[in-house]
Amino acid sequence: MRTTAGWRADGPAEKLNRVSLQRRDLRADDIAVRVDHCGVCHTDLQSINAARGPVVPGHEFTGTVTEVGAKVTRFAVGDPVAVGNIVDSCGECAMCRAGQENFCHEFPTLTYGGTDRHDGTTTLGGYTREHVVRDAFAYALPAGLDAAAAAPLLCAGIAVWEPLRSLGVGRGTRVAVAGLGGLGHLAVKFAVALGAEVAVISRTPGKLDDALRLGARDLLVSTDEARMAASRERFDVMIDTISAAHELGPYLRLVAMDGALAQVGHLGPVSVDTMDLLIGRKKLTSAGSGGRPATQEMLDFCAEHDITADVEVLPSSQVNEALERLSRNDVRHRFVLDMSDLD
Amino acid sequence: MRTTAGWRADGPAEKLNRVSLQRRDLRADDIAVRVDHCGVCHTDLQSINAARGPVVPGHEFTGTVTEVGAKVTRFAVGDPVAVGNIVDSCGECAMCRAGQENFCHEFPTLTYGGTDRHDGTTTLGGYTREHVVRDAFAYALPAGLDAAAAAPLLCAGIAVWEPLRSLGVGRGTRVAVAGLGGLGHLAVKFAVALGAEVAVISRTPGKLDDALRLGARDLLVSTDEARMAASRERFDVMIDTISAAHELGPYLRLVAMDGALAQVGHLGPVSVDTMDLLIGRKKLTSAGSGGRPATQEMLDFCAEHDITADVEVLPSSQVNEALERLSRNDVRHRFVLDMSDLD
Repeated sequence: MRTTAGWRADGPAEKLNRVSLQRRDLRADDIAVRVDHCGVCHTDLQSINAARGPVVPGHEFTGTVTEVGAKVTRFAVGDPVAVGNIVDSCGECAMCRAGQENFCHEFPTLTYGGTDRHDGTTTLGGYTREHVVRDAFAYALPAGLDAAAAAPLLCAGIAVWEPLRSLGVGRGTRVAVAGLGGLGHLAVKFAVALGAEVAVISRTPGKLDDALRLGARDLLVSTDEARMAASRERFDVMIDTISAAHELGPYLRLVAMDGALAQVGHLGPVSVDTMDLLIGRKKLTSAGSGGRPATQEMLDFCAEHDITADVEVLPSSQVNEALERLSRNDVRHRFVLDMSDLD
Repeated sequence: MRTTAGWRADGPAEKLNRVSLQRRDLRADDIAVRVDHCGVCHTDLQSINAARGPVVPGHEFTGTVTEVGAKVTRFAVGDPVAVGNIVDSCGECAMCRAGQENFCHEFPTLTYGGTDRHDGTTTLGGYTREHVVRDAFAYALPAGLDAAAAAPLLCAGIAVWEPLRSLGVGRGTRVAVAGLGGLGHLAVKFAVALGAEVAVISRTPGKLDDALRLGARDLLVSTDEARMAASRERFDVMIDTISAAHELGPYLRLVAMDGALAQVGHLGPVSVDTMDLLIGRKKLTSAGSGGRPATQEMLDFCAEHDITADVEVLPSSQVNEALERLSRNDVRHRFVLDMSDLD
């Protein structure tokens, strides 16, 4: 076993403590990664709050390869890499064969809180200085992308990239992005770079400047009923990144005929009135992750269009402050932990 | 005013009584229709049960033109016609201009229980011997279609035709139809004629012969958990015609990646777990009506493919028996009232 340092919560809603952690010795298809930067995702908060045992969060990180297993050919020591929210899958089912390992029929192995398919141990996330991961689930981090600002692409980024691509967003598509947090601001950047006409929907009028800076043409204030009514059927695609439970009707009514609303921020049961889908033949869908080909495609797209997340980088020792501020949405737009203070 | 006879409920859950009814004198763009056959729809039951005043149901009927208004050119006396669940719309909004009068921004005028856009009266449906309707909302009934068996096409038919068409069902599409009632059996016929590979999902194993006779290749019993599990991701499109509220998860899990479930039978609020949409990027939509072009297109398709509903025709005097049996799903597959006994 290999020893490293990391940040762990030992019970529900507990503060994270710096602890010594064990990583497995490298299998033939493993690489060891020095984790340099790890994004702080809403899921991390939820996982800590619902923890039924120790949890080491973190599933969007970038770092440097420090060692490779005997059969690894994709990476060499020194390569910059990125890892997202899944680290393994069965590799044999129809979904894995289709490059949608995120939909693996045997359920993919989550980066933390999952169960390793070989030794049965619980996986530990990226709030740590060293990670050991199957090479197939690490991605080449394209040159030119800032490693800290790229980390959130691996979860927040792919979560919104998937629906934008699967819903065919391109030149001239009218896209609304509801919510301007970690996911939302990346959805705006992606949609703009894809050629879409983008508007942001927020309850906060003060986000106008930010929305325009990101490339949106407009900000719709969700509490402005007159504006909302006047915007009926205005958008082909709605990327709904609002992380709290909320009524879908007012957002569906902004979607044009045959358009779609993709719920990305709030996962779990939602209620929808079928009349809000029927009138205008609208579609409700959801997204939250991507397969390996789509993830690498997104990273390459980001390199080509010079897209990374807007981040506030904190030393990892401030992880508890980051989580507390995130719970109040006090971040623009994503916290990233600098893990070098764990050395 | 014109006087005719019809069947009316005078309060919630009341039996229908034969009454004398008034129809308006013909406007320039009206036609008078002798109603020969009117289908009995689940909506009729619901409307009677929820009645807050007198209701004359019926929104899928066929008949014969008996008189035309001064400016009517589409129809002549003697023409066979059909009328569905909307009889007017604003004609000016984007939806009306797109031929989707069913989504009219001012809400279309429903065939019964609606408010006439000119005189403000409450519309009376097709359980009557004579109807007066704007010519634009009557359809030419193609030659060769049995008038009694064609009546249900105007509501049950168009309700399932719309999602089959908008979801791109064609040769080789794998379609499941959940529920084999009035809507379901027409969905099977349409999908088969469109070239799809069709399976029926029902809780009743005894419907196998019926499903095969309609052209389906298979019946999946919804309570057969092993069969349901083995059918995961088997269908590109699910037309869900189940009229009672039900869990969507087990049906969504049968939908293939990037496929869609259209809820047609149960309208109102539904709960869905976004994970059932996220895993496989599935879409939830709904349908229940169509615009004028799609309705005429469906009728022409039915003439070409010799499709009508499987009906049990009863004299209109047995309307209460029909409604009572419908409430127990004791019909294969649609009741149609023969209105000639009102003469």
